[in-house]
Amino acid sequence: MADRVEAVAIEGLGEIVPGDDLPALIADALAASTGVLPLRDDDVLVVTQKVVSKAEGAIVDLTTIEPRPVAVEFARRYDRDARQVEVVLREAKRVIRMANGVVITETPHGFVCANGGIDASNVGPGSGDIVTLLPADPDASAERIRAAVRHRLGHDLPVIVSDSFGRPWRFGIVDVAIGVSGIEPLDDLRGTPDADGRVMKSTVRAVADEIASVAELVFGKTGRHPIALVRGAAFNRGDGHIRDVIMPAQMDLFR
Amino acid sequence: MADRVEAVAIEGLGEIVPGDDLPALIADALAASTGVLPLRDDDVLVVTQKVVSKAEGAIVDLTTIEPRPVAVEFARRYDRDARQVEVVLREAKRVIRMANGVVITETPHGFVCANGGIDASNVGPGSGDIVTLLPADPDASAERIRAAVRHRLGHDLPVIVSDSFGRPWRFGIVDVAIGVSGIEPLDDLRGTPDADGRVMKSTVRAVADEIASVAELVFGKTGRHPIALVRGAAFNRGDGHIRDVIMPAQMDLFR
Repeated sequence: MADRVEAVAIEGLGEIVPGDDLPALIADALAASTGVLPLRDDDVLVVTQKVVSKAEGAIVDLTTIEPRPVAVEFARRYDRDARQVEVVLREAKRVIRMANGVVITETPHGFVCANGGIDASNVGPGSGDIVTLLPADPDASAERIRAAVRHRLGHDLPVIVSDSFGRPWRFGIVDVAIGVSGIEPLDDLRGTPDADGRVMKSTVRAVADEIASVAELVFGKTGRHPIALVRGAAFNRGDGHIRDVIMPAQMDLFR
Repeated sequence: MADRVEAVAIEGLGEIVPGDDLPALIADALAASTGVLPLRDDDVLVVTQKVVSKAEGAIVDLTTIEPRPVAVEFARRYDRDARQVEVVLREAKRVIRMANGVVITETPHGFVCANGGIDASNVGPGSGDIVTLLPADPDASAERIRAAVRHRLGHDLPVIVSDSFGRPWRFGIVDVAIGVSGIEPLDDLRGTPDADGRVMKSTVRAVADEIASVAELVFGKTGRHPIALVRGAAFNRGDGHIRDVIMPAQMDLFR
């Protein structure tokens, strides 16, 4: 187990707009930084959902949206933008809760989160009516970035696409993984001995989520830094998928 | 916002047993490490619940426990220890869910978590029948550690007591803060401008939880390292309490 873990924000990624070749731009930014920061085998690259969605054009112009009556009513009641509520409902596979001004939905990917991961902050100057959706296939987004880095730098760097999710029962958001490539998102210790030699029965570490949280501490919520290297975490390389993390509805007690 | 964040495991804390002066032992371990690792103003100390509970005697010997019939039935059905289920029920303020082999309770502190935070791993050699409870007042535990460090090293080091919690909808556990001293556990950015100058409406970062998650990456689940410094995270000093993080039942949609 590592005894030192570090997250470093990577500089040099400019404002991202739809159509940008984000994987190539990220590879360029990494190439420019490797003089001072040579890549290591225990590095993981974390990329925020926001830049992935923008580059992939997973955005909606709210001026084109006609909200349904329930969205209008909900928005009026809780001082929200009815058009954004409409997009959340439109993109949802299922509405889990809609109360107290909060819409919790299950996304087509299987994530359960506030507003289906759709939000308005940091989508570029002068874009008050633009919201970002989640990337259509965040594992594929991560895989494309990983391939570009491998091509440009000859280094197989695992990639996590992250987003900020709230949690039931606790205030505040934490970053979690919504897409992975080259890393197993869970570290399953069941059956291995603990420090006293006792077999652990239920420990599955959500290592990709914790790595995403580390990266958030250098991203900052103002979004100035959308990519970071996390170095030194003990993780397993592999061809894991984010669906490995998603609890099936029949096991879940809160859906 | 920081552009580099680091977690470093602190060595030198031996096996903790009930009655140990954990704050003094932690201060000693930090004092021994400050030769190679001088403390900085942006350091936060993270201490696992397990050593806090052990030192404070927040443990239960399962051989003294007589399980009630519902605990016996649940344990038989799901291959669990009926005595541990009994302790979970006994310590609970409220049972939130009891199904699929999982008991989710609300603890007296207000945490909603699996088994009320009671578990069996890593409580010392030859202790197969001992479980740890959560500390009675984790903020006070953190405060005592902070006071001992201040006394020993003249440094006001914010302290987080952490534990591993599961989440609804996602597999795997992540570390979160269950007690704080000297740090505001939430970083409330509502009303501040984002990178594009737009006012953010709903961003409250659970910074103490993310710092706890960073530390977990160096603790490792085998529990060899129960304390770590997290350095460089942007947090606010203050006299925050963990109850600031707990969502009141009337706001919560999943209780």
